[in-house]
Amino acid sequence: MGRYDDLMSLSLRKGFLIPSAEIYGGFAGFYDYGHNGARLKRKWEDLWIRYFLGLGDNYHLIDTSTVLPYRALKASGHVDLFTDLLVYCSKCKEPHRADQLIEAATGTSGEGMDAAQVRAAIVENNIGCRRCGGPLGEPVPFNIMFPLAVGPQGEDQGFLRPETAQGAYLSFKREFELLRKRLPLGLAMVGKAYRNEISPRQGTYRMREFHQAELQIFFDPETFEDNLDTGEVEDDTLRITWAKDREEIRDESVKALLQGGDIPAFYLYHLAMVQRFYTDVLRVPAESFRLYELTEAERAFYNEIHYDVQIDMESLGGFREVGGVHYRTSYDLTRHQEHSKEKMQVFHQGKRFVPHVLELSFGVDRNVWAILDLDYDIGEKAVLRLAPQLAPFACAVFPLVNKDGLPDMARRVYRDLREWTDAVYDDSGSVGRRYARMDEIGTPYCVTVDYESLENRDVTVRDRDSTDQVRVSVEELRPVLTQLLEGTTAFDSLRVGD
Amino acid sequence: MGRYDDLMSLSLRKGFLIPSAEIYGGFAGFYDYGHNGARLKRKWEDLWIRYFLGLGDNYHLIDTSTVLPYRALKASGHVDLFTDLLVYCSKCKEPHRADQLIEAATGTSGEGMDAAQVRAAIVENNIGCRRCGGPLGEPVPFNIMFPLAVGPQGEDQGFLRPETAQGAYLSFKREFELLRKRLPLGLAMVGKAYRNEISPRQGTYRMREFHQAELQIFFDPETFEDNLDTGEVEDDTLRITWAKDREEIRDESVKALLQGGDIPAFYLYHLAMVQRFYTDVLRVPAESFRLYELTEAERAFYNEIHYDVQIDMESLGGFREVGGVHYRTSYDLTRHQEHSKEKMQVFHQGKRFVPHVLELSFGVDRNVWAILDLDYDIGEKAVLRLAPQLAPFACAVFPLVNKDGLPDMARRVYRDLREWTDAVYDDSGSVGRRYARMDEIGTPYCVTVDYESLENRDVTVRDRDSTDQVRVSVEELRPVLTQLLEGTTAFDSLRVGD
Repeated sequence: MGRYDDLMSLSLRKGFLIPSAEIYGGFAGFYDYGHNGARLKRKWEDLWIRYFLGLGDNYHLIDTSTVLPYRALKASGHVDLFTDLLVYCSKCKEPHRADQLIEAATGTSGEGMDAAQVRAAIVENNIGCRRCGGPLGEPVPFNIMFPLAVGPQGEDQGFLRPETAQGAYLSFKREFELLRKRLPLGLAMVGKAYRNEISPRQGTYRMREFHQAELQIFFDPETFEDNLDTGEVEDDTLRITWAKDREEIRDESVKALLQGGDIPAFYLYHLAMVQRFYTDVLRVPAESFRLYELTEAERAFYNEIHYDVQIDMESLGGFREVGGVHYRTSYDLTRHQEHSKEKMQVFHQGKRFVPHVLELSFGVDRNVWAILDLDYDIGEKAVLRLAPQLAPFACAVFPLVNKDGLPDMARRVYRDLREWTDAVYDDSGSVGRRYARMDEIGTPYCVTVDYESLENRDVTVRDRDSTDQVRVSVEELRPVLTQLLEGTTAFDSLRVGD
Repeated sequence: MGRYDDLMSLSLRKGFLIPSAEIYGGFAGFYDYGHNGARLKRKWEDLWIRYFLGLGDNYHLIDTSTVLPYRALKASGHVDLFTDLLVYCSKCKEPHRADQLIEAATGTSGEGMDAAQVRAAIVENNIGCRRCGGPLGEPVPFNIMFPLAVGPQGEDQGFLRPETAQGAYLSFKREFELLRKRLPLGLAMVGKAYRNEISPRQGTYRMREFHQAELQIFFDPETFEDNLDTGEVEDDTLRITWAKDREEIRDESVKALLQGGDIPAFYLYHLAMVQRFYTDVLRVPAESFRLYELTEAERAFYNEIHYDVQIDMESLGGFREVGGVHYRTSYDLTRHQEHSKEKMQVFHQGKRFVPHVLELSFGVDRNVWAILDLDYDIGEKAVLRLAPQLAPFACAVFPLVNKDGLPDMARRVYRDLREWTDAVYDDSGSVGRRYARMDEIGTPYCVTVDYESLENRDVTVRDRDSTDQVRVSVEELRPVLTQLLEGTTAFDSLRVGD
């Protein structure tokens, strides 16, 4: 069984990710988060929100509607340009996504090809229908937004949003005014987006309904750097794959890159901050992380600079995109200014201009999948080595046995913990079995109430990763667990004082 | 200006609720949460999740897709029955929702009327088109779900879910098995639902895209009560409006109701727990809360018992529904069992049966609106008296003046606070003006760094509601604020030790 199947099995057995409407045979492109997955996802989002709002004093969370009117998506370019090329079989009528068809037949990606190039590649490589072998028709553009007829006669045409970003652009004018006309202004959003993917595949990697976490930073390109403490990231080393050498990942000093001057300092600063989120907050090993430069041909025309954020996932065969850092210039606001006739131009520090946008964009589902891939350790026993703050449950409480007053005390401990953190109670099976159950869903700390506990009012705390144990008094349990979960105390250091 | 307008003005000025796609003239039925609203909403959800998952050891959060396949909604009855009656004008073709048409013309609600009754009411009251006065056509059913064509040729028909509940029913079988076949099992969800309302209105009260927080409890009706500590709520007094006397709200003792035996004990227990969520967690004044019994004619046919949860909102003219407690029996699982051919019957404690469902259902947007209505106090000055745990920001940090090293110290205090809570930094305008700004978004505590702070390493903490101030050392700031926010220490008691 390969790594992908191992993860799918974990997902299904432990309630992380489950095909939607499973009892009706599923629904291609849609997944549900089960009882552990929903918690893991919400915790990832909480960490993301806290970290990225922390990048600036004027950075805010908003939550805009997932349905947008036609005019807004016409303005953004999605109505005309958010298309994939589709090739139908002339015989069996099966639709194929052109780039996937070409990749499957030739081994090289067909991404970014236009209709003429696709047609040429089909002829040149003599590609036929993947289903029946029949001849293929002309490539036709297919808009992958989901249209929605709103109102009793469908009189208000809308679409499910294809990205959360547009909500922030539509909100910019009002939020800028409400937030006292200061730049940089950050508008962050965590929410669903929808794309009618022609062939959804690979679990949660390409879904029709998915979750994004995006921060749009609106700024004055002439002064943005003055607001950033680039000195703070000078000593960081970025792991970059340059477009000119796709085979390598290089460790690049931020200081040297700043001096080199090829990449704007504001952009480097944010690449460093994104990398820190992965290495410091999510605890992704540096070797599993890279920033991947896109060429002008690969990136969207409105992106002046674009690096993908990639994580090495064994289940998906290597480094795959989980996010991106996009310098979108003033493209978006200018388009909405033209189409809405509302002024997006601001008057700021004596200048009149349309703010530029730096977008830090992340696919939540892809990130959750990547975390499972990186952290699921199947050695002698299966342990999900999640960062404690990501674990579905921060701790579990067990009575050693179900008698002699141990359950009563364990319940009290459990209830106290649940007042301030996510705790789970488990009294079924041997303690060893309960540990194993908690290890596989990543619970970092297990608290056991035993006979000694009744006398000394203390409990055993077991560390998931070392399996070491330490006794902690009931009174000290909250402060000790708080420090362990926040990472301000190491489990090792507790043993010294034991 | 009426209360509704006051709240809308607050919403727009402070970024709570804002019409979607405002720069394109808005989009009827869709609202965005701005920079304060998004935080308030997320905090409401966090409190809801913590409280309702806390009602049972086997209660879990899940997060299922918002798009559901046709078959699932055919099974649930929504494809055939989730309709409103629509009446078109024969002259100008304007569509009208039948019940609203009748209410507008006669002053009494047309809700629940069938087509024949609507037709009769139109004739009897000589009702014409509200737009042009023309004659009205026959009432026709209009399904208010949004259909979605999924796949390149729309081959997989789906709908945006009209309620989160279905996701839990579709997940029941797998989750029951994963969670070791125990009952009661609770599956909670917080997320979006969609209804193509014919005439969306009253701000966020009836939207086309809205948020629900629902807990579905699956149980064995013969043993559910054994799992509940009904003794714990015996001394509670429920505020109920009985169907037989709609003019009154009665204070009913739970103990007496339990003895009376007309309402099952498990149902009473949950009514009490829902009321406690409002009075104890959200701090809604008892007199603004009631449980509203629905008659058999008013409730959905599959609901055996149904009480609305209502809050008195001046902005909407009185008590309005913000949630409901629905005893749905085994209706939902039985329907899905029939249509999917998957067994929903369980074998539990020696018996074979299809579990029953108790649904605790809440409209998040309506609740957020109700909280704003209840807490927005426009006296001499405008103060939003939110429960501290609901406030967009737990605290604000100000330097008294922007010189002499005060900003440096204030920034350090701010950064430390932001490590563990939601803090905002404000150095603009007079301190009085900053207090006023924080009062209006409900920030419960303001921390000011003044000249004394530099010498004594302490700060001023100001309480929003009393406007009292107390000095707290920088070291004590986190524990003191934690206790204030959790409600374990009263602000008053701090002054004694001052």
